[in-house]
Amino acid sequence: MNAGSFFPDNIKKALQNTPPGEWIPEIPDECISLHCGYPAPALMPDEEVKAAVTSLLEEEHDLPLHYIGSPKIIKLKEQVLKRLKERGISVAEKELLITSGACQAIDLIARILLNEESIVAIESPTYMEALEIFQNYTRHIISIPVDKHGLQTGVLEEILEERRQKGFTLPRFLYTIPTFQNPTGTTMSGERRQHVLELAKKYNFLIVEDDAYGELSFNKCFPTLKAMDQYSRVLHVGSLSKIVAPGMRIGWIAGASEIIHACAWFKKDLNHPFAQAAMAVYLANTNLNNKLVTLRDTYRSKRDVLTSALEQYFPESASWYVPEGGYFLWMKIPGADTSELLTHALAEGVSFIPGKYFYIDQAAGTEFLRLSFSYADEKEITEGIRRLGKVTEAYL
Amino acid sequence: MNAGSFFPDNIKKALQNTPPGEWIPEIPDECISLHCGYPAPALMPDEEVKAAVTSLLEEEHDLPLHYIGSPKIIKLKEQVLKRLKERGISVAEKELLITSGACQAIDLIARILLNEESIVAIESPTYMEALEIFQNYTRHIISIPVDKHGLQTGVLEEILEERRQKGFTLPRFLYTIPTFQNPTGTTMSGERRQHVLELAKKYNFLIVEDDAYGELSFNKCFPTLKAMDQYSRVLHVGSLSKIVAPGMRIGWIAGASEIIHACAWFKKDLNHPFAQAAMAVYLANTNLNNKLVTLRDTYRSKRDVLTSALEQYFPESASWYVPEGGYFLWMKIPGADTSELLTHALAEGVSFIPGKYFYIDQAAGTEFLRLSFSYADEKEITEGIRRLGKVTEAYL
Repeated sequence: MNAGSFFPDNIKKALQNTPPGEWIPEIPDECISLHCGYPAPALMPDEEVKAAVTSLLEEEHDLPLHYIGSPKIIKLKEQVLKRLKERGISVAEKELLITSGACQAIDLIARILLNEESIVAIESPTYMEALEIFQNYTRHIISIPVDKHGLQTGVLEEILEERRQKGFTLPRFLYTIPTFQNPTGTTMSGERRQHVLELAKKYNFLIVEDDAYGELSFNKCFPTLKAMDQYSRVLHVGSLSKIVAPGMRIGWIAGASEIIHACAWFKKDLNHPFAQAAMAVYLANTNLNNKLVTLRDTYRSKRDVLTSALEQYFPESASWYVPEGGYFLWMKIPGADTSELLTHALAEGVSFIPGKYFYIDQAAGTEFLRLSFSYADEKEITEGIRRLGKVTEAYL
Repeated sequence: MNAGSFFPDNIKKALQNTPPGEWIPEIPDECISLHCGYPAPALMPDEEVKAAVTSLLEEEHDLPLHYIGSPKIIKLKEQVLKRLKERGISVAEKELLITSGACQAIDLIARILLNEESIVAIESPTYMEALEIFQNYTRHIISIPVDKHGLQTGVLEEILEERRQKGFTLPRFLYTIPTFQNPTGTTMSGERRQHVLELAKKYNFLIVEDDAYGELSFNKCFPTLKAMDQYSRVLHVGSLSKIVAPGMRIGWIAGASEIIHACAWFKKDLNHPFAQAAMAVYLANTNLNNKLVTLRDTYRSKRDVLTSALEQYFPESASWYVPEGGYFLWMKIPGADTSELLTHALAEGVSFIPGKYFYIDQAAGTEFLRLSFSYADEKEITEGIRRLGKVTEAYL
């Protein structure tokens, strides 16, 4: 029996996309990893998590092991609300949903807002997992280019106005990573932030603000779109993955209560009482501001190591944006096909992600690549870029 | 702005159902809890989980805190595969998906198999959460009655044959809890198990076997449908929630690889590396068979306390099925409206779940109620039933 014959058409269509995790060639473990968006191993709080779990279970015994029951789960929500408030985002309890990371948050939002006829606007390039999620719901995806000041809101406005004049459907929402964008590392300017919020009101769409990297600024940082959101059109997606530990799967959506209610409705993992309670204890025992100073210093220093290695080892023709925060640097190598380049790079024991995986129209990414400076240590970054520079010289 | 205006019609429809958790009146904490399907607090492995997390983090440090990385995650899958094999279910690695509990498993299956036109067949009464999930996808739900031998497969066959003769669409799948059913506590006979598997082949539908309680048998137990499944039509849904700890959110789907692939595709919580790794260590350190002996003895004894209290304190007119395993007992009180009865019961400090919440046609459940003997201790069960008996006498 072919079980696939039971799938409805929309599922069959979705399954025609490239399967998750099959985008990128196998990366050998011994490679210097400049591809993955993992936090620095040295910054992972394994000792603190162990202490948190121990004190949680000694204090509450069986409570955190039930479906619900640990008071710490409410505490976690309060802690996230408090943190959002410190960042200028004032939302009520019913305007916040804790999710299994930002990824589940984005999927839930897509699930309640999109059908096969819906339009969604995205940045081009953008987070590959979000691309994949949106393609599970609709094929009508509008790509808006990003430059060194982030999303080109002028282009967005032209497209929206043209669609309106032609009587075409307007987007349900815009998905943007305004701060330290994945993959470009760019940040949306204050002017453009204001502009995109005005566009959302004028053309009646919602904004999904993915702020996974927002706390990792090396210098100044702009207020979040949610903090500037006067019309309650922004769904702010956040996560502890990049600042604490992705394995705990703690993310959230902050937005209009109707949206939060609907997302909660379709969230069938029944939360993760144990993980949430453990993270609540962890956060109660942690000075997050001090921790963020360490994170920012570490990643800033790695960024500097990366950029000076690039200056030293890369051909003149290569260019890149210098990220002011986050995990990633975006590079252009004119004349290169970065998928080919990756094959050579892996042979030399260094990895990156070819640009094409961050675009709907993959051809647009041929000359680009994403380097991550979050996971590899500084020695590895320098050595990795030395090898990659050599490979690139030889390839061009 | 009304964010609700952004919802597609199918979402608006789904949101018209009763919201999750709003089915049942607030149960005061001081009530004797005969309503909830929680494991017995005394059986919760908080010490063992603490030990597992400690040794996991001391051994693997940051690995379990990343998105992926802990070898224990693969170990967990191997442990589940091994356990399934011991129960006569031989599936390959690609035929198994670890989920966030059975609830997410059921939702994923519904998501990839149902659209608004699809038919799904369910037991009547059935697990309320599953009812709610299916109603999020389709309104075309066929209820098949359950008696003391479980699903009435004869009735199912009549309905299927009639639909076929009339040229009506046949169900995509049947959702059944064949062993120690929720809410009735009944178990499908061997004959009916054989029959339903033949019907699945003859009328070309899949069977979703929810086996959450299957390991909790007080006497003999039947093989699972999956163990009898010659035509690869059974999707076996299991969970550690009822035998280890629901808060860890470990469940699974075992079935055809195309189904598993599609479910994995739409599962966007990126698994829970930390919880999965911790459970793998817990299982490695635990003799599950010995543990199950304890669980079965404990719940059998609670079942006995419950039934003898019912004999002692309940009016002649009340009747019930004596469950041979699991957590629940199903009772009929002719002439009663169990929702009214609950109001009186809560006033006397004892809870149960009115039968209507387990039916699509809620009126069918008016005279029924579900008692759980899993959570309350034996003293509480006796006292709870004494109060409930008194309330019932007075009410009738």
